[in-house]
Amino acid sequence: MKKHNFYAGPSILPQVAIDETINALKDFAGTGISLASVSHRSKEFDAVMDEAVALFKELLNIPEGYSVIFLGGGASLQFAMVPFNLLNKKAVYVNTGTWASKAMKEAKLFGEVVEIKEANYFKLPHNFDYPTDADYIHITTNNTIYGTEYKKDIDYKIPVVADMSSDIFSRPVDISKYDLIYGGAQKNLAPSGVTFAIFKNDIFGKVTRPIPTMLGYTIHAENNSMYNTPPVIPVFTALQTLRWIKANGGVAGMKKRNDEKASKLYAEIDRNKMFKSTVQGEDRSIMNVCFIMNEEYKDFEAEFAKFSSEKGMLGIKGHRSVGGFRASIYNALEIESVDALIQTMQEFEKMH
Amino acid sequence: MKKHNFYAGPSILPQVAIDETINALKDFAGTGISLASVSHRSKEFDAVMDEAVALFKELLNIPEGYSVIFLGGGASLQFAMVPFNLLNKKAVYVNTGTWASKAMKEAKLFGEVVEIKEANYFKLPHNFDYPTDADYIHITTNNTIYGTEYKKDIDYKIPVVADMSSDIFSRPVDISKYDLIYGGAQKNLAPSGVTFAIFKNDIFGKVTRPIPTMLGYTIHAENNSMYNTPPVIPVFTALQTLRWIKANGGVAGMKKRNDEKASKLYAEIDRNKMFKSTVQGEDRSIMNVCFIMNEEYKDFEAEFAKFSSEKGMLGIKGHRSVGGFRASIYNALEIESVDALIQTMQEFEKMH
Repeated sequence: MKKHNFYAGPSILPQVAIDETINALKDFAGTGISLASVSHRSKEFDAVMDEAVALFKELLNIPEGYSVIFLGGGASLQFAMVPFNLLNKKAVYVNTGTWASKAMKEAKLFGEVVEIKEANYFKLPHNFDYPTDADYIHITTNNTIYGTEYKKDIDYKIPVVADMSSDIFSRPVDISKYDLIYGGAQKNLAPSGVTFAIFKNDIFGKVTRPIPTMLGYTIHAENNSMYNTPPVIPVFTALQTLRWIKANGGVAGMKKRNDEKASKLYAEIDRNKMFKSTVQGEDRSIMNVCFIMNEEYKDFEAEFAKFSSEKGMLGIKGHRSVGGFRASIYNALEIESVDALIQTMQEFEKMH
Repeated sequence: MKKHNFYAGPSILPQVAIDETINALKDFAGTGISLASVSHRSKEFDAVMDEAVALFKELLNIPEGYSVIFLGGGASLQFAMVPFNLLNKKAVYVNTGTWASKAMKEAKLFGEVVEIKEANYFKLPHNFDYPTDADYIHITTNNTIYGTEYKKDIDYKIPVVADMSSDIFSRPVDISKYDLIYGGAQKNLAPSGVTFAIFKNDIFGKVTRPIPTMLGYTIHAENNSMYNTPPVIPVFTALQTLRWIKANGGVAGMKKRNDEKASKLYAEIDRNKMFKSTVQGEDRSIMNVCFIMNEEYKDFEAEFAKFSSEKGMLGIKGHRSVGGFRASIYNALEIESVDALIQTMQEFEKMH
């Protein structure tokens, strides 16, 4: 039976990216040795890193004056690196969920944090006031756990730092509106173990605290992301995914795919008598579609979890902190998987 | 032609570890999906993490009261994490080369550093005095660039922190003599992208500075190395390598293999009129064998580089900071590769 991978991350990647990684683990770029065993200082791996950075810039239309780097440590390490490098006195954090909240917690170690928040995480703050003397505003563009997403680039009067772990490459982004974008790559890009950062070159150097070498940004850019040994396999797979994105219409092509998958699935949730969406209107994520049982069917949650699992749906259990269900429909997920989930929901509806 | 992988790291891994990684990238543990796309919260990956930690403890005979964790970020990030967590006032750094020196540089951001050093890096400091009121002493047990190694566990009067990036699992270690051991895994253990740390549980909590969550150690142990998303593929491959070590006599078996390879290669360097070793006696590394051309043959360096490369020897160029040659002969390197290198050296000698 075909398995449909709705995991929230690590998550589905293009099959061709996995196949090429397998090929490289057998023999990397004709070197006669495995990608797992090749030096990151080899000219063959240099070429991988160079092309990955170049495709990042090309696909996201990154303006002059920005750098792209790959690091280890995950977005969670970025939660500390951002304030370490940028927070002098005060920063604004838009608290839109668990991850934004974790980012904010780290910032508080370094300075004053002004928190922007709705009454609950199922709605995003819009058009809010914020202090314009803050060092930066931090947003999480897509919130995997609650299924909300800022799908438009917003103009702010102060530098913008964005965690785009879970929606990078899902749609065109106007990079010029951001000063620093970071993310764990294990959703739309690569296996876990590599983190990306895109930053305007002139934003650093304004804090006075000493910064450990590895926790700076510029040094990694100056060393083509090889100041220390990079995570070779995840970077290689990221490159294969970037090539696949380019071959499939770039980020505009991804947006079309994702809009189609998301609108079909939300339509079914809105229509099906047994389920309801936890997020309404413009805040709905096109990456993580969260839904719960309608009030009169709430006792059927465990049964649907079992039923859908038997139909080959993997990873649709909601995050442990919110319950219900979550279908993560990242770039690489085919529309056939969304159709299969919809069919499963309809079959379940007919049974009751 | 067979390639012999003498890279200093990332470097040769057991073929079975690579083969099993390839199998898991096709279908991980019968889940029907790839290791690259599986959630780290799946029970199948939980089992991988649990077994990797258990084998770490078993193979190294780690006493009760110690934890083993896997992280991202590389040993270079550990250079900062160590003083962040342990340096109150003063630490001793045994400066035995480039990496030790980098570790020391980060420590200086956090407190006073007492440096122990020989006149040059081709000799290790032994039986030196050091302040016994220091918070810890930091040593680098194996120095990849200079080819020196502390092959015995030394008793110190203060807590010991050791970077074992390049000789972990190459020999039995008396873990009880150490308080914290860390290392990048990309030599004897895994592809790049995962870092290990072994620590005595009661050594932390003695500094007062605030520590960003990801830069603590205990939190990772408390969350079974899944406080944040771990580098799934490198951890999986590490497990396969650990199984291979166990199947091949454990760390005692590795020491036997490595001693045999190292003594054969050093014997040839000492015998061959064209080459000479840069390190003498007990300081010689059994992991990285460094050699240069003898004075009267020093103009033949480029020619030997080319000749050996044509014979399938990969990665024997010495580190750019010291020149000459370096054969890294980690656990997974077969003695046949050492024999091939020796034969190449002998052929080259006959030609001149």
